[in-house]
Amino acid sequence: MNTAQPNDVHAAWLPPEAFRALGSRHILVCGEGTLVDTVRHEAAQACARYGGRVDLPPPRPVDARSASGTSYDLVLALIPAGLLPITAAAVEVGYRRRHGPGALDEEGFLLARHAEGTVVLAEAPAGLLYGLFHLVRLGESAFGLTRPMELHRPAMRRRMLDHWDNVDVHPVMGQVERGYAGGSLFWRDGARQADLTRVGAYGRLLAACGVNAVAVNNVNVHTTEMRLLTHRLGDVAAIADVLRPYGIRVHLSVSFAAPVALGGLPTADPLDGGVRAWWADTTRQVYERVPDFGGYVVKADSEGQPGPFAYGRSHADGANVLADALAPFGGVVHWRAFVYHHRQDWRDRSTDRARAACDHFAPLDGQFRDNVILQVKHGPMDFQPREPISPVIAAMPGTRLAVEFQVTQEYTGQQRHVCYLAPWWSEVLRFTPWGDGGPTVADVAAGGSTAGEAAGGGLVAVSNVGDDPFWTGHPLAQANLYAFGRLAWDPRLDPVAVLDEWIQLTFARSTPGGPGPIRRALHEIMDDSWHTYERYTAPLGVGFMVRPGHHYGPDVDGYEYTPWGTYHFADRDGVGVDRTRASGTGFTGQYPPPWRDVYESVERCPDELLLFFHHVPYGHVLRSGSTVIQHIYDTHFAGVEQVAAMRRRWERLAGMVDPGVHARVRELLDEQLRCAQEWRDQINAYFFRKSGVPDAYGRPIP
Amino acid sequence: MNTAQPNDVHAAWLPPEAFRALGSRHILVCGEGTLVDTVRHEAAQACARYGGRVDLPPPRPVDARSASGTSYDLVLALIPAGLLPITAAAVEVGYRRRHGPGALDEEGFLLARHAEGTVVLAEAPAGLLYGLFHLVRLGESAFGLTRPMELHRPAMRRRMLDHWDNVDVHPVMGQVERGYAGGSLFWRDGARQADLTRVGAYGRLLAACGVNAVAVNNVNVHTTEMRLLTHRLGDVAAIADVLRPYGIRVHLSVSFAAPVALGGLPTADPLDGGVRAWWADTTRQVYERVPDFGGYVVKADSEGQPGPFAYGRSHADGANVLADALAPFGGVVHWRAFVYHHRQDWRDRSTDRARAACDHFAPLDGQFRDNVILQVKHGPMDFQPREPISPVIAAMPGTRLAVEFQVTQEYTGQQRHVCYLAPWWSEVLRFTPWGDGGPTVADVAAGGSTAGEAAGGGLVAVSNVGDDPFWTGHPLAQANLYAFGRLAWDPRLDPVAVLDEWIQLTFARSTPGGPGPIRRALHEIMDDSWHTYERYTAPLGVGFMVRPGHHYGPDVDGYEYTPWGTYHFADRDGVGVDRTRASGTGFTGQYPPPWRDVYESVERCPDELLLFFHHVPYGHVLRSGSTVIQHIYDTHFAGVEQVAAMRRRWERLAGMVDPGVHARVRELLDEQLRCAQEWRDQINAYFFRKSGVPDAYGRPIP
Repeated sequence: MNTAQPNDVHAAWLPPEAFRALGSRHILVCGEGTLVDTVRHEAAQACARYGGRVDLPPPRPVDARSASGTSYDLVLALIPAGLLPITAAAVEVGYRRRHGPGALDEEGFLLARHAEGTVVLAEAPAGLLYGLFHLVRLGESAFGLTRPMELHRPAMRRRMLDHWDNVDVHPVMGQVERGYAGGSLFWRDGARQADLTRVGAYGRLLAACGVNAVAVNNVNVHTTEMRLLTHRLGDVAAIADVLRPYGIRVHLSVSFAAPVALGGLPTADPLDGGVRAWWADTTRQVYERVPDFGGYVVKADSEGQPGPFAYGRSHADGANVLADALAPFGGVVHWRAFVYHHRQDWRDRSTDRARAACDHFAPLDGQFRDNVILQVKHGPMDFQPREPISPVIAAMPGTRLAVEFQVTQEYTGQQRHVCYLAPWWSEVLRFTPWGDGGPTVADVAAGGSTAGEAAGGGLVAVSNVGDDPFWTGHPLAQANLYAFGRLAWDPRLDPVAVLDEWIQLTFARSTPGGPGPIRRALHEIMDDSWHTYERYTAPLGVGFMVRPGHHYGPDVDGYEYTPWGTYHFADRDGVGVDRTRASGTGFTGQYPPPWRDVYESVERCPDELLLFFHHVPYGHVLRSGSTVIQHIYDTHFAGVEQVAAMRRRWERLAGMVDPGVHARVRELLDEQLRCAQEWRDQINAYFFRKSGVPDAYGRPIP
Repeated sequence: MNTAQPNDVHAAWLPPEAFRALGSRHILVCGEGTLVDTVRHEAAQACARYGGRVDLPPPRPVDARSASGTSYDLVLALIPAGLLPITAAAVEVGYRRRHGPGALDEEGFLLARHAEGTVVLAEAPAGLLYGLFHLVRLGESAFGLTRPMELHRPAMRRRMLDHWDNVDVHPVMGQVERGYAGGSLFWRDGARQADLTRVGAYGRLLAACGVNAVAVNNVNVHTTEMRLLTHRLGDVAAIADVLRPYGIRVHLSVSFAAPVALGGLPTADPLDGGVRAWWADTTRQVYERVPDFGGYVVKADSEGQPGPFAYGRSHADGANVLADALAPFGGVVHWRAFVYHHRQDWRDRSTDRARAACDHFAPLDGQFRDNVILQVKHGPMDFQPREPISPVIAAMPGTRLAVEFQVTQEYTGQQRHVCYLAPWWSEVLRFTPWGDGGPTVADVAAGGSTAGEAAGGGLVAVSNVGDDPFWTGHPLAQANLYAFGRLAWDPRLDPVAVLDEWIQLTFARSTPGGPGPIRRALHEIMDDSWHTYERYTAPLGVGFMVRPGHHYGPDVDGYEYTPWGTYHFADRDGVGVDRTRASGTGFTGQYPPPWRDVYESVERCPDELLLFFHHVPYGHVLRSGSTVIQHIYDTHFAGVEQVAAMRRRWERLAGMVDPGVHARVRELLDEQLRCAQEWRDQINAYFFRKSGVPDAYGRPIP
């Protein structure tokens, strides 16, 4: 384990300054195991810098003021522990009395603050690690005033990042598909990165925000990547070795055709005995090399990837054969529900891509093994800046569901635009698919809710990280990665409060002149940046309107006459997709009440989703009181003004943040402003040319 | 020299059968030199197959019936020749009496047919070669009946094909930029093709249709290709060696930045002494290796290529420095006039790409050296299926102009669509820029007309050939290559008659059951195929509406909001580009009378160019009597029906043409029909959505 920050790489939310409060204390770490060693190592490094001290566990019971006269500001201990300082032992007793053993589970921790010292207890090593990073977040406030005992446990058992990283550089998609932060941390030009130092540093950052699983290759599994499962397993093992000290398990994207392509079998039919045996045997060999291997991620029968349809088998058949192979070792299959007809005829208005996942998967509810996790994109389309939630989330109570987000900003500015996405994810996670008072999307993903009997599948996101010195291309896009981990740990967190954590860790504690101005400025720039992005791009939930292929910048008709199923149907009279049961594709019927009726009604449908569900005239009056066409103009003018304001605010931070960070962000804000103006002008010109309705305020439309 | 047809490669217009008439004759070839050897070799090969005989020149004057009792059916002789059979000598005397020596020039030939035999005379070896291939075209009709003496001379001195072939495979553009016929004949993966047999066969085909110059690399000169001029000159020499026996000179595309990139100079400023010396010295070395080297082709200050603008110099300064280097050796510079602002703001309606070439170059008229040929695309935009002629053609009487066509079908179906382009080129060549009775475009290119004092620059085209077994991807696209050569030789030829030559040579003479059905069918399929293509693509001369980047298939707004200067400005009321002086960009003012007034007038402007010059309402009534919107619907429905008819006609030829050719064309016609339907539906849907006007005949619009 090497927790050293690689040279020339930005420290993100773990700069040395973040460890000042911890590092100036006298600390006792009790317990054994790899992750406890990590805790001890982190504490020792902090203390070496800031003058504190880390002790080995004492030989017999001691008080916070030890027999030798030593006092501990902080005790981090794995329980049950025979020998603890008295304050810590008292906390343990209190915990047992109130919760009983096992309540902290594998990853929870308990935090107690007394005047004599601070105590963190955990029942498993990972809990202690998360407790440590919680203290880092708290900083000085972790010490001092007495506060009641707090029990922290993650809402989601699995908090996972999928890397769409290719081993070979793909001729079109490059080293990282939809990657906007340089090359891959793991792979380079067909080989594993020789130096895994940055992978270790990445694992440390992930642990500090709560992520505990990583899939190390693209869900589109090409020839070279396929062989990670067999011939190149050593590469996977090497990465797992570096991530293990941070409690992160490695998962692998595999090809459903692997038995044919790698095993030389004549078929990949999931009901074929030879195929089952091949998966079982291959999986056993994976666990021999990587005992804590997480499992497989599969994109099957989707956008050209192979799958069970070729053999007339269902996706349950397909997923279960892999699940059976993984079950003896505690592994899981993440089976993606992103299945749709991507060779659709644009002339055919009855086919609706939004319906596809539910049409394909809902009939299979209850047929998946317990260790299959159906991985569902949060919306029915594809990570647009605004979509309704996927109806699959409410349609499969007998299936473990994971909800998938996209931290990489494919459709939200490609890490050239500031777009803090946590408010969007928070809205999704808090959404109640069965109406007010019912379970939330987060409850479904977490499991154990009234939503269904199945345990939850957790939260998954596509990573936005690459080998860029700032990790994420845009330095401020680090906040999205951080916030994803935090919301996966606790979906009830306020996204603005999470952003504040990130700002304080990343910038504020080391800011000359105090943290005030930079906190204020970054909140002004970032808090509402998702809404700003939404304002200057495709209006009212209609989505897409991006340049085909790379998906950056506007092209209103770019996908309109294509086979991709992503249309807006704008004509001279109106715009939007009729997905009602009454006159459209019937997609609204995939939702339970009340949403099936809310979305069906043009009056009750939320403005921000109106064009997703309805085709309306340009003069249609929104719930906001504006017409659709005037709303389009207003939001597009406003969005650009907001970007201009962001840019001015950032300018004023010159001298307050690291010059490298300041220069990079300034340059990107210039591009964001240029691009936002392009969006504004193209969208406004397009709809003005179509509708003929002038802007009510006479602003220039090209 | 090896005139063997490579294995597995289609014979194009020189199948063995084409030589039957020649090959069964008793032939005398008189003269010396490489090209005469080629003539003799061709004649001998034909005779070996079909039972004729080729004699060496006789030792003393003979009659057509020689002293030894031999009679000659055909005499091919270089004059003045001391010893000729009497009929041939009589022809020579007749020629001298009527024309005087030199009238045949470098490439002309004289054909006479008597009952005793046929005589072809030339004053230079190339003329004899063209005479031979003229006999091949004539077949049996070259023999027999007496006909008056005919004098054949090319209208254009230089009839040139530019290959946009890359030496390295370009990551985006591939081995051949805008190539639709496989890889390059010359280059493969960074190296010269080791086996130049196909280059030889290509040269033979070109000589047989009249082409005499080839530029062997892309006008976009990348790093590797740049070095052909210096370090890799051996590759150029090797190609020149193979093409020389067919009278074809090799030209090279060079980078204006070569003095910096290759020569290590600090500048490429054309007025810098060191730069002049570098070009002079480099060019001298080229001629040492390739004594008949043709010259340079330069795309400067265009689409990212370097040029004289960087040094504040004019394009005349730029071209002249290269011309001065070439002049001592008789070489020429082809300097492309394709210069425009490709980072235009689509919001700015005053900038007009159509104006660019004339704005840039017309003020430089008279400033170019005599061996500079300004190479002008035939239209002001970029090889669309319909454009007006470039106003540059009429604007530079003191400059040698070459007119550039695009045989490779970038915008005309990419050799997946049947689109016989000669009628289009013929229309351009016969166009009279100064009005009825004045010189034609062909006259300008040929030079020596009243259009100006300068000698003409000839005709140039971008080749459509690759290493595909059919040479051109689509077997019927061979006709475009053939017709380009023929029209360059004689622009007054009827394009349908040229097509007939091609059909007869390529298919008909070897057709079982006689040539009738296949001739009829191919004329039905091909004669009007350019108009058919025009019907189902962008309407009324407005152009573009293609998928950005690759340019295949429809995307009405694909270029509408881009920096490329290619717009249609369709809104709910109308469509088209106002290029009038009265209210538009003023482009019409670049033409002399009468066209400046014809194009300016919405009433007098030809229908097929209406939207190129005017923005009109959908209800505007065309000269044809139809409204614009109804014309759009009608032509798009008709175009698709015509493709369907082509397909049916081709089906009926099964068994009459080679099965490989039949299968390939059938498959491509399926794709053409699919693509034409896609064009029809997207164009119709787009304009219906915008205009709201239904089709007068109630046909389905998606």
